[in-house]
Amino acid sequence: MEPDRVRVIFLGGIGEVGKNMTVVEYGEDIIVVDVGLGFPEEEMLGIDLLLPDTTYLQDKKDRIRGIFITHGHEDHIGALAYLLPGLGNPPIYATRLTLGLIGVKLKEARLFDAATLIELDPDSDAAVEAGAFRVEPFRVCHSIPDAVGFGITSPAGLLVFTGDFKFDQTPVDGRQTDFAKLADLSRRRPLALISDCVHVETPGVTPSERTLEPTFERVIDAAPRRIFVATFASLISRVQQILDIAALYGRKVAPVGRSIEKNVDMAVQLGYLHPPEGTLIGQHEASYLPDDEIIYVVTGSQGEPMAVLSRIANRDHRTIQVGEGDTVVISASPIPGNETSVLRIIDNLFRQGANVIYGATDKVHVSGHASQEELKLMLNLVRPEYVVPFHGEYRHLALYARLAESVGVPPENVIRAGLGAVLEFGPGFGAVVGEVPAGHVYVDGVTIGDVSDVVIRDRQTLARDGVLFVTVTVDRQTGAVLAGPDIVSRGFVYERNAEALLGAAKGRVRDALSLNGAGDHAADWSYLNRKIKEAASAYIWEQTRRRPMILPLVVEA
Amino acid sequence: MEPDRVRVIFLGGIGEVGKNMTVVEYGEDIIVVDVGLGFPEEEMLGIDLLLPDTTYLQDKKDRIRGIFITHGHEDHIGALAYLLPGLGNPPIYATRLTLGLIGVKLKEARLFDAATLIELDPDSDAAVEAGAFRVEPFRVCHSIPDAVGFGITSPAGLLVFTGDFKFDQTPVDGRQTDFAKLADLSRRRPLALISDCVHVETPGVTPSERTLEPTFERVIDAAPRRIFVATFASLISRVQQILDIAALYGRKVAPVGRSIEKNVDMAVQLGYLHPPEGTLIGQHEASYLPDDEIIYVVTGSQGEPMAVLSRIANRDHRTIQVGEGDTVVISASPIPGNETSVLRIIDNLFRQGANVIYGATDKVHVSGHASQEELKLMLNLVRPEYVVPFHGEYRHLALYARLAESVGVPPENVIRAGLGAVLEFGPGFGAVVGEVPAGHVYVDGVTIGDVSDVVIRDRQTLARDGVLFVTVTVDRQTGAVLAGPDIVSRGFVYERNAEALLGAAKGRVRDALSLNGAGDHAADWSYLNRKIKEAASAYIWEQTRRRPMILPLVVEA
Repeated sequence: MEPDRVRVIFLGGIGEVGKNMTVVEYGEDIIVVDVGLGFPEEEMLGIDLLLPDTTYLQDKKDRIRGIFITHGHEDHIGALAYLLPGLGNPPIYATRLTLGLIGVKLKEARLFDAATLIELDPDSDAAVEAGAFRVEPFRVCHSIPDAVGFGITSPAGLLVFTGDFKFDQTPVDGRQTDFAKLADLSRRRPLALISDCVHVETPGVTPSERTLEPTFERVIDAAPRRIFVATFASLISRVQQILDIAALYGRKVAPVGRSIEKNVDMAVQLGYLHPPEGTLIGQHEASYLPDDEIIYVVTGSQGEPMAVLSRIANRDHRTIQVGEGDTVVISASPIPGNETSVLRIIDNLFRQGANVIYGATDKVHVSGHASQEELKLMLNLVRPEYVVPFHGEYRHLALYARLAESVGVPPENVIRAGLGAVLEFGPGFGAVVGEVPAGHVYVDGVTIGDVSDVVIRDRQTLARDGVLFVTVTVDRQTGAVLAGPDIVSRGFVYERNAEALLGAAKGRVRDALSLNGAGDHAADWSYLNRKIKEAASAYIWEQTRRRPMILPLVVEA
Repeated sequence: MEPDRVRVIFLGGIGEVGKNMTVVEYGEDIIVVDVGLGFPEEEMLGIDLLLPDTTYLQDKKDRIRGIFITHGHEDHIGALAYLLPGLGNPPIYATRLTLGLIGVKLKEARLFDAATLIELDPDSDAAVEAGAFRVEPFRVCHSIPDAVGFGITSPAGLLVFTGDFKFDQTPVDGRQTDFAKLADLSRRRPLALISDCVHVETPGVTPSERTLEPTFERVIDAAPRRIFVATFASLISRVQQILDIAALYGRKVAPVGRSIEKNVDMAVQLGYLHPPEGTLIGQHEASYLPDDEIIYVVTGSQGEPMAVLSRIANRDHRTIQVGEGDTVVISASPIPGNETSVLRIIDNLFRQGANVIYGATDKVHVSGHASQEELKLMLNLVRPEYVVPFHGEYRHLALYARLAESVGVPPENVIRAGLGAVLEFGPGFGAVVGEVPAGHVYVDGVTIGDVSDVVIRDRQTLARDGVLFVTVTVDRQTGAVLAGPDIVSRGFVYERNAEALLGAAKGRVRDALSLNGAGDHAADWSYLNRKIKEAASAYIWEQTRRRPMILPLVVEA
């Protein structure tokens, strides 16, 4: 690194998405922004979670001066419980609610006592000194309270990191994006703006959370029996809205589902949720109320199979059943990849007799991310020299580049940086100067990193056409077939229906082994294995146009 | 069946979707409406296509008086090439363009010469007598020309079958839905309306195809270099619009991709497509034109990996490469399940430097299905006694029921019939009276029906956690372990990284076989298999919280 430059690297994510974990480096000092989880894409078969690849930091942990967290969503805090010790347990800086959410995770992972958690107060002008860096949090609006962006000053200049944001002019908690601090940062001539761009496809302005209230009032007013509202467990402002409207219409609100119960508890304790007197109740208490006085706020708005919404849709919940006359509101948009599961749940809820209110029929959710006019506003507020869009796929980066040009940013000053790209900034300088390992590490079950791309590719082959296990016992000396071949198949064809096919395949394998003077190769397992594989797969392709995985096993006797 | 009743059964589809194939039965006479393909859902691993389950018709083929096809989409004609002989090769009735599309498929399957294809003219008042049925086609608008619905009269009364429809008041081909015939059918007091309901979530009216033209004009006018438009190969009216606008802006249009080239050819020959003089050219001719005079109309708008759009996005097309300054228009909506593939293609096109215009950014596609106000209009035009929504999931049936009530249909006269439900109608009577086998048969590769749900479940297990083969050689007499256990894993963990884990698992298996007096069970394979399976899976679950498929194999020596 040139002496007067600051380095930015997006370490964690999939595709172009660089949102999970970002490294900022100047000289010997490193700070990390966010340490979040990724969620597997469709073809990452059997994978539960993705962790950021921290290879780059492996020999640098003594240089990490702090971890700064923008907000409490899983994709920004969820990997702390896996990676904190490996990063050398540096201090974690975050706002009050975010620290609360992090604390819960670290306690579960038995990392809390060793951790250093330091609260940020974005309403003061205090800054954190971390090595060569001076970090100033500023409030932004998002779909969770207490979200911030960071002004990060190093001797090379000022970086403004938006975090996930939108400009809600009438947020439910009354805490708007901090225009004054942004204006102040702007006056200090920022080198670069690192901006959320994931909602850049949408023209105009993302509607305020407040705009949902008329719909909720109408739905709650009209509902003849119980109401279920499914939303993100962290969407505290939505819960506040439901509590307020419930009180107006004489209903009480019971959270159901582990994560939402925990988050509501914590938000009340920390003063982020203000339930009208007597409105917030427990599930048990709710069960004694008349149907038209209950609102359940439940987990599972993304179709998660173990969450409450899915269970009630499938008549699989321990205590709650949904039925004729009940109303279910899905107050969330499905994250790409979850659409099908969510639609199935909606189908099943209708099947139980419920009236379901969801995105396709009513306005019951707004995004937490800035639309085009807000992204332009952020650019015009901050007026940086360079712009780096993040938190998007390639299409978002490309559309954002066009948008930035439209407000006067020179095209060459918009930098599209994928995962692992090494960005450097200094006075009059901003560019990608190299590349380091980045991306994701698979978590499958309780183990991390032992499932590689090779394993995923095998799963894809197995998923497509199944597997055939072919065993032959051969004479150790002569190589003559003593027994078999036998074939066991799974996921290929139902064996009982396919005796003829598998029988003929065995014949082909037997022929291949005898025709080719197998005796000459009696001890050559790899030769025999190859012969078996070739003969079986050629015949099966010919007959079925499929390519199951074929695993030969030669037993010598 | 009661003597004075007509029976309707939705035979083909998945979920509640009854669109692929419908049976109408009266006394000894049967007619079939549509014989289409289904497309596999996400969890139907490795499956290529779904055919309607025709078990119900197996012993009734001599009673089938005709197959009536509503329009030429795959999900309405695509299974003919598989099922026609099994249905006893009855005559197929369809409009001119639809017959052309069916002809292509039957020729490919070498079924054309034996087939009886009879053209329907929906502009005449002629009706087809088919056994006890009188079938009257009426024009409807849809996203393919020459689509019709059917009035089906039997001694039990009149059924009106909408097929897939919308009311486009300004269709590109000038052929509107036939209001006069619908009014005439209405005067004959229809027993039941069987109505497309798949777009019932959308309020208002589906915009006319014409409303896309300003966007296309703007995009084509602004494009500095080549333009690629990806759309459905059967969306002839879209191709007509592009041809017309191309001529205005001095460009020529070259279809690229097998299905779109064939469909355009046929549509020109049959008079359904009217290219302005000199505007329609071949791909080879296009390659000699300056970039700003070319529009390619290409296949692959659904993200199909082998189609042209995907190939150019991945720099994998034989002759065409997309680059800086090119414009790509995705003029189609992704069918549920295809979203992710389409988005990846968009990302890759941006990565090649193209400007991509798609649904999230611009209005470049409209649905072919009726929205709420059109569905109400159809109900009010036809005024049936009973209403049966079809072509939807359960949520669509439920929302349609509410919509039908809103225009005065008594709730008990809206019948929600899933696949295989036996619907009967007669004077003053309409109800589900029973159930027959229905749904789908899997096509995987070239074989039909040999992949069952058992096989799919195995593929799901394999996909999630992979497979372990555990082999042991035991003494035939004593049951003592002579060699092994050996473990081969695929899709579980990368073997080189997991020697310790698999080594310990082998130890557990060995212990299990020796501890349990295996000698007593020397000849009892199923006992030994169970022991191996239990020991290996318990250990692996304990260590990894995963459940790979475990296949034991005991070799005796």
